[in-house]
Amino acid sequence: MTGAAKPARRGRPGHDRAAIIRAGVELFNQQGYDATSVSDLTGRLGLTKSALYHHVDSKEQILQVALEDALGGLERALTDALDHPTAAERLSAIIRGAVRVLTARQPQVTLLLRLRGNSEIETAALARRRRFDHTVTGLVREAQSEGVVRSDLDAAVATRLIFGMINSVVEWYRPDGPIDPELLGEEILAVTLGGLQPRD
Amino acid sequence: MTGAAKPARRGRPGHDRAAIIRAGVELFNQQGYDATSVSDLTGRLGLTKSALYHHVDSKEQILQVALEDALGGLERALTDALDHPTAAERLSAIIRGAVRVLTARQPQVTLLLRLRGNSEIETAALARRRRFDHTVTGLVREAQSEGVVRSDLDAAVATRLIFGMINSVVEWYRPDGPIDPELLGEEILAVTLGGLQPRD
Repeated sequence: MTGAAKPARRGRPGHDRAAIIRAGVELFNQQGYDATSVSDLTGRLGLTKSALYHHVDSKEQILQVALEDALGGLERALTDALDHPTAAERLSAIIRGAVRVLTARQPQVTLLLRLRGNSEIETAALARRRRFDHTVTGLVREAQSEGVVRSDLDAAVATRLIFGMINSVVEWYRPDGPIDPELLGEEILAVTLGGLQPRD
Repeated sequence: MTGAAKPARRGRPGHDRAAIIRAGVELFNQQGYDATSVSDLTGRLGLTKSALYHHVDSKEQILQVALEDALGGLERALTDALDHPTAAERLSAIIRGAVRVLTARQPQVTLLLRLRGNSEIETAALARRRRFDHTVTGLVREAQSEGVVRSDLDAAVATRLIFGMINSVVEWYRPDGPIDPELLGEEILAVTLGGLQPRD
């Protein structure tokens, strides 16, 4: 992440590249990825195409970096969650962890959730998202075996409902707003696992 | 669905118009509304532009009809829900009713949920959606007063979480799949209101 001074030809690649990627993701989320051209990007940034291509290889690369931010974050949260000893704790940890990733990397996760799968990068990202969902469905199934989640509900449907609530946060959460993301994670955890617990 | 022969000039306007609107909504959901041209539409339908304009005035009209289907359905469900005597029953009725509209009119609701507000029709639809949300937030607040929903959670946040779960159904529900939409409504009702009930 850090490094010694680079040859002058490369400018301040870290800083400028991050700003270009941020602006690209913002445009993709506003207009759609397919509808956004490299000219839209240079117009938004006030850069020439050659200045843009100094920092990123292509529009596709911006998409790839942003999707890696989103998916990498979610996958690390899942790996961390799997370390916990009980299924209830593992499931709680991934719910908290997903809300944390989603509030910290909202633009990138928004982009992930709106993917239509029209290119190789997109279909690869959607496949990673399916693997993530599949692992979480396994956690829900284990939590059913432990008796902390109702067993009469299909584990895949329960997972979709839990992540439906979590993912909807990207639509309205504001990083500079009054809602504390950690507290929001606790509330979503309480509503989903409270609502899914077995009835007497 | 069936009908007597119509004058040749008009073709079967009811049938054709519905098919055009269905195909339009499908394309808008796949490619994005802004990115879909009238040529895309005629290409998909195998129609000439003049045949298309025989049935609909414009791309905008297709959007408007579809958004009216979605919003009109949700607003009628809300009006019906408001007839119930207690806040708990009103809130339960709108949760059930929204799932019913969303599963019955999935393409149109998908379009509504993906709107970016880049045109007058879109901003008007988003304003209707906000009024709907505002009324439901009022129902959640009344349910808090009745003691059936936790009072320590902001009513607007609770509404967003409930509708986050409901709306996510458009992403995966298949009308020809194994999941009964009425049962799904009951499950979502149980999870959301169960998860939001006051703790001892």
